[in-house]
Amino acid sequence: MPVLPPGYSIRRLQARDFEDVVETLKVLTVVGDVTRTQFEETLAYWKSVTLKVGAHSVPTYNPHVVVNAGGRVVATGTVLIERKIIRNCGLVGHVEDIAVAKDQQGKQLGLLLIQYLTDLAHETGCYKVILDCDEKNVGFYEKCGYRRCGVEMDHRL
Amino acid sequence: MPVLPPGYSIRRLQARDFEDVVETLKVLTVVGDVTRTQFEETLAYWKSVTLKVGAHSVPTYNPHVVVNAGGRVVATGTVLIERKIIRNCGLVGHVEDIAVAKDQQGKQLGLLLIQYLTDLAHETGCYKVILDCDEKNVGFYEKCGYRRCGVEMDHRL
Ligand SMILES: CC(=O)N[C@@H]1[C@@H](O)[C@H](O)[C@@H](COP(=O)(O)O)O[C@@H]1O
Ligand SMILES: CC(=O)N[C@@H]1[C@@H](O)[C@H](O)[C@@H](COP(=O)(O)O)O[C@@H]1O
Repeated sequence: MPVLPPGYSIRRLQARDFEDVVETLKVLTVVGDVTRTQFEETLAYWKSVTLKVGAHSVPTYNPHVVVNAGGRVVATGTVLIERKIIRNCGLVGHVEDIAVAKDQQGKQLGLLLIQYLTDLAHETGCYKVILDCDEKNVGFYEKCGYRRCGVEMDHRL
Repeated sequence: MPVLPPGYSIRRLQARDFEDVVETLKVLTVVGDVTRTQFEETLAYWKSVTLKVGAHSVPTYNPHVVVNAGGRVVATGTVLIERKIIRNCGLVGHVEDIAVAKDQQGKQLGLLLIQYLTDLAHETGCYKVILDCDEKNVGFYEKCGYRRCGVEMDHRL
């Protein structure tokens, strides 16, 4: 079982992570000129959306970060929990926006973060956790316990 | 351009659609023993989750139905709107749970519903709309204007 390097930890994303997270996400895709205010508004929105599971209220958005011993964010990712009618009004976890800082690759941080988010979703009661990725990342996600199950399609204007 | 058959229309899902929707969803997958109360609670939850887009508050869950002239639900589907940090705190539409009643296939109801949900997501400001499907449905979604863009992977216990 892989473990985090000494001093590293996984925790929820916080407002003070603004610069590090924006930087880390650039490894994944276009981030754009996100201001601190927009970032904080997004975090506040994410916090405001909850889901009732039995007697508990749980967050719908679950953004997390891996931080190193110095407190710097070195990886980020989230799992969004969707409530459906199918599967006995089942829950589905959507793993999204996984990014590991370029200089931190090879430490299994991505794998550990994905396992963390996947466990979180199953503990919340999700009957499945899904994600979409490039063909070239299939092998990596298989190491995380995922299996190829369908085709992702998109519509852009 | 395909159009709905005479008397058919698309509207938001309502509580009175309970039996028809549960029946229609069985074409897609396992629904289970969803009670009227659970259905209504899910609808109420979906209504309660909103998103601020500029000055407006828009629903995060957008369940819709196609009804025939007699008011019977003949197709159903939804689009969930996710707020991200990437892409300038962009929005992504997730088209989910598309099902057309068996005796209503061949009328392009699925295509019209998907175009409706896709337009709704783009009008809300989504930079892309995505969906996951079986390999065998790729041709259908291509007719709806979608392109293959990645691999869906899942994790089930
Ligand atoms: C597992 C994972 O992290 N998948 C990501 C997805 O979450 C992210 O939103 C998208 C961004 O790409 P885009 O900028 O082209 O939408 O890339 C990948 O599909
Ligand atoms: C575009 C579309 O409708 N895709 C559906 C998805 O929305 C649905 O949730 C899933 C149910 O399958 P499951 O019961 O195996 O989770 O099937 C398909 O992937």
